[in-house]
Amino acid sequence: MKISERITAMASSPIRKLTPLADKAKSAGIKIYHLNIGQPDIRTPKQGIDSLRTIDRTVLEYSPSQGFLSLRRKISGYYSKCGMEYSPDDITVTAGASEAVLFSFLTCMDPGDELITTEPAYANYLAFADVAGVKVRTLKTSIENGFALPEVEHFEELITDRTKAVLICNPNNPSGTLYGMKEMQMLADIVRKHDLYLFSDEVYREFVYDGMEYFSAGHFDAIADNVVLIDSFSKRYSECGIRIGALITKNRSITEGVLKLCQARLSPPLLGQIVAEASCDAEPSYLDDVIREYDRRRKVLVESLARIPGVVTSIPHGAFYAMAALPVDDAEKFCAWCLSDFSYEGESVMLAPANGFYITPGLGTNQVRMAYVLKEDDLKRAVFLLAKALEAYPGRKES
Amino acid sequence: MKISERITAMASSPIRKLTPLADKAKSAGIKIYHLNIGQPDIRTPKQGIDSLRTIDRTVLEYSPSQGFLSLRRKISGYYSKCGMEYSPDDITVTAGASEAVLFSFLTCMDPGDELITTEPAYANYLAFADVAGVKVRTLKTSIENGFALPEVEHFEELITDRTKAVLICNPNNPSGTLYGMKEMQMLADIVRKHDLYLFSDEVYREFVYDGMEYFSAGHFDAIADNVVLIDSFSKRYSECGIRIGALITKNRSITEGVLKLCQARLSPPLLGQIVAEASCDAEPSYLDDVIREYDRRRKVLVESLARIPGVVTSIPHGAFYAMAALPVDDAEKFCAWCLSDFSYEGESVMLAPANGFYITPGLGTNQVRMAYVLKEDDLKRAVFLLAKALEAYPGRKES
Repeated sequence: MKISERITAMASSPIRKLTPLADKAKSAGIKIYHLNIGQPDIRTPKQGIDSLRTIDRTVLEYSPSQGFLSLRRKISGYYSKCGMEYSPDDITVTAGASEAVLFSFLTCMDPGDELITTEPAYANYLAFADVAGVKVRTLKTSIENGFALPEVEHFEELITDRTKAVLICNPNNPSGTLYGMKEMQMLADIVRKHDLYLFSDEVYREFVYDGMEYFSAGHFDAIADNVVLIDSFSKRYSECGIRIGALITKNRSITEGVLKLCQARLSPPLLGQIVAEASCDAEPSYLDDVIREYDRRRKVLVESLARIPGVVTSIPHGAFYAMAALPVDDAEKFCAWCLSDFSYEGESVMLAPANGFYITPGLGTNQVRMAYVLKEDDLKRAVFLLAKALEAYPGRKES
Repeated sequence: MKISERITAMASSPIRKLTPLADKAKSAGIKIYHLNIGQPDIRTPKQGIDSLRTIDRTVLEYSPSQGFLSLRRKISGYYSKCGMEYSPDDITVTAGASEAVLFSFLTCMDPGDELITTEPAYANYLAFADVAGVKVRTLKTSIENGFALPEVEHFEELITDRTKAVLICNPNNPSGTLYGMKEMQMLADIVRKHDLYLFSDEVYREFVYDGMEYFSAGHFDAIADNVVLIDSFSKRYSECGIRIGALITKNRSITEGVLKLCQARLSPPLLGQIVAEASCDAEPSYLDDVIREYDRRRKVLVESLARIPGVVTSIPHGAFYAMAALPVDDAEKFCAWCLSDFSYEGESVMLAPANGFYITPGLGTNQVRMAYVLKEDDLKRAVFLLAKALEAYPGRKES
């Protein structure tokens, strides 16, 4: 008996290797500041939490495979406010954006097909591509130019007769990069010209800073049949645990195909749907406050990082992540060292090594991803600890 | 742009075709008794529902990818009471048994590998096999001998060098058949001899009648490394909507492989885990009462069916389903006709055509599956309506 090759080939997250070190440090009494995770400390809307207290069901039964119509109507209304008209029939409720990504891949691509995305990329896309038997081809983006989208000719160099889709994450995890009108128009032209699907992961849609305008793939009518939007309640309402996302497309063949997969897994989480629907009634000031809070943290992070000698940061315009190149030999070693060999006044910091976000071996080895999901004072302290750690690290290496 | 062949090849559930007919009948004022679904009307334990009212979290955040340790400890304790020692490390919490089935397939088999199971079979196994790229080879079981497991030589006839696993559902959905010690020992011998995985879907484990003894695949120590148990809270505590299941194995390579998939989808539903954990504290009388209730319904169903001329039923000893062969030309046509062309005193009945549970074309065409999840009086009325429909049906055909 052997384990499947698709599983043995699947990379383990570098974070997973660090977790035992963090646990060990904690049990030795060291306080760890977590810059490694995308779990916000922001409160879930009161409406969402209260909805659980007033559940008057006696049986917690299956919900429809496509999700409650009432929730799909709320999502449709939300999109309308975002300037996109999607009917409840265009919307499939999924177990988080994760399931929406997996079901998009399984429905739109056959084993052996190719998907183009940028790197660094959200690591779990690769796992879902492995499940679907799809080959991921990547366009390199670099910290020096803010992880900007490559020009059209670089995309076209990668397109073969097996290419079926382009995948973007906008605003981007892990880079925090926001694609503007010019980039989105370029993508629209590419997928239209080459008859490709455009999977657009927009779970950080609200988190846009510096007064920049947000353009969704759903704003481009000419490619309505190509576009599959991946959405989630996790980040918008700080309710990652409810596992409610959505797959949204005007392409009826995709929705029907996805529905077969939805029926196989019976239904999305009932309780999460109840919370998600109630969260849609949060007052508009809820999100305004959250975005303002993240923006403050972003500035604190970027400004504090800028004061550390040898650290290069790309200024994020969206999401709540920043990438930084550190003056170290190997960021994964450095992150492990921070947990196993370093502390300052009984405290240390945990970062996500960026190699987990790169597909091409050797790229981003001196980079880390930081999530600015800590309160300002904690964030300042975390960056202070990072500076202290960089001073003490034996593998320091100017880049 | 085309949809993936794995999706176009995936069968649509016959129930899905019937649903619009049922909706139409209902909007015409006809009351429909549902014998087609496995959604129990039994109350969820009070402890489970109350746990939602007392949630004092302000952030509904991610839970660990493998599931809360506290829940895995409860599951471990439950297994101990069932005579099986599984540590919390052997247990992975999944989004329903559905995810446990999918993750087992993906982890233990490569595309092109073969899986052996019996037919009729739970239809969604086939969809998950399609996703995993696995070929399902089936052993026919028949209503005439109670869907008994075939002899060992029939299994061995199907084993090739691509065979990786045997899958059983015990007690069985859709047939209600319970495998005893002799059958389980035979399966243990087969998987040991041929070095195969044994996936054992035991979500109906508690629902066993007529004083029969239950033997889990987990009771056979000699095949501990071969066995993957598929479990769920859905049926045990009538909480299908919370989407909490479990994948349980002593084979550490499987658990580690499955964990990679779990990490890709981040975490199982937080709220469902809270309800599941609390449900484990339901008083033992809760399950006793539920089993007694199903047993009463089972007898009502079997006895009422026995009085209809031309209907052949296999007596179910487990789960809450019964299969019946009807004196009709085509059960799918008959089920549709019951909704589109028949009513008696303003009422009709909805059944699941069994062809959705057979893989080999042409098998089970005159069979239906009935779930005895209705209260006794409703169940009697439903079977009465079935008898009336069979009298009136123009495609009647004695088998």
